[in-house]
Amino acid sequence: MTASTPVAFEDPQYREAVIDLLGVIAYGEISAFERLAEDAKLAPTLEDKVAIVSMATAEFAHVARLNERLTELGADPFEAMAPFREPLDRFHEYTAPDDWYEGLIKAYVGDGLANDFYREIAAYLDPGTRDLILASLEESGHAAFVVDRVRKAIAADHRLGGRLALWGRRLMGEALTQAQRVTADRDALTALLAGGVDRPGLDLAAIGRMFTRITERHAERMAQLGLSS
Amino acid sequence: MTASTPVAFEDPQYREAVIDLLGVIAYGEISAFERLAEDAKLAPTLEDKVAIVSMATAEFAHVARLNERLTELGADPFEAMAPFREPLDRFHEYTAPDDWYEGLIKAYVGDGLANDFYREIAAYLDPGTRDLILASLEESGHAAFVVDRVRKAIAADHRLGGRLALWGRRLMGEALTQAQRVTADRDALTALLAGGVDRPGLDLAAIGRMFTRITERHAERMAQLGLSS
Repeated sequence: MTASTPVAFEDPQYREAVIDLLGVIAYGEISAFERLAEDAKLAPTLEDKVAIVSMATAEFAHVARLNERLTELGADPFEAMAPFREPLDRFHEYTAPDDWYEGLIKAYVGDGLANDFYREIAAYLDPGTRDLILASLEESGHAAFVVDRVRKAIAADHRLGGRLALWGRRLMGEALTQAQRVTADRDALTALLAGGVDRPGLDLAAIGRMFTRITERHAERMAQLGLSS
Repeated sequence: MTASTPVAFEDPQYREAVIDLLGVIAYGEISAFERLAEDAKLAPTLEDKVAIVSMATAEFAHVARLNERLTELGADPFEAMAPFREPLDRFHEYTAPDDWYEGLIKAYVGDGLANDFYREIAAYLDPGTRDLILASLEESGHAAFVVDRVRKAIAADHRLGGRLALWGRRLMGEALTQAQRVTADRDALTALLAGGVDRPGLDLAAIGRMFTRITERHAERMAQLGLSS
């Protein structure tokens, strides 16, 4: 730990929770990169491929800064990621897109969900960690590309809209299942959400409101794509 | 074309050759990205994976600037890339690595060869185009990583050195075959190398010296890896 480490880190459980959080976000960016690079193979044109690879590289670009911060906190970045590899890999395995459009929606809706979740948690952290997390979640600016491609495809084939709406619901379900598994296994993360002596936390009602906000934003994204949620 | 277009571009063949060159470099970066993202799956550790994905994203980061310049020249970037997709895809198909080490060597030796070749050609171009090409070829700074990993692997298994030396020769052979196919098909590029009324070109002796320099640098890279060439 360096001289610039905030006082909150004197609580070893807080430090452990932040390391967990940076580790899961970093591995999330790596696995998002891998999945997008794989989806790029399904791109119908070279132009579409370049657009999705740009999304992939934007995700990956955040990993270096997260790893630096983990090192500053005295953690090994790859050890910090280790507990999250299995649940995140499993999420991607269970939600492997069958075609280009499923891949686009997963990129847009899945990353949106994850980002909303991390943003909610970031509100309970010291300013330095919060800013680092918010910077890591910056939109890659490619949402407009996904919305355009998906809306055009649905306009051309109405049955596609029904299938993709189901797909969106499945993504939401799998994301919640894996998120629950991760938090149940990580005591420090759960304790972080519950708060501490000198830190406000979330009671059950607040957790309920948080999930309401996350699902509302999910529904907004689906609506932007022209899909029911 | 914009007001900032140099006088050399008044020669339509020169303009065509530059568009070809930027197109082949841009598609080269895209296909290098794809191949490295694929090789990343063979990485023995998450740390190795992050290192090779960083090489991949560094390659891809140059595409946007090349495409902007192609657009400034009045060309469609994806049309400019089109003639080079087949030979470059074929190169990668014929040199698909069988394991992690073949992938590392291909990344280091293959990109080195391509970069040397484009650097030689860049010397015959207007300063703006030359600077753009040289910036696109900047080393991603990961050579030390490849050299370290390959040398350690050879030290642990001497037979590996023999196999990887053969692999390096095969890469060189395939690269020359595909480079020859590309230049034979693209008259403007060939004419560029031959020079024009007001532009110096390469006679046969100069082309010979150019290939000598390229093969010498290839041998240096192989030696750095601890491999005979």
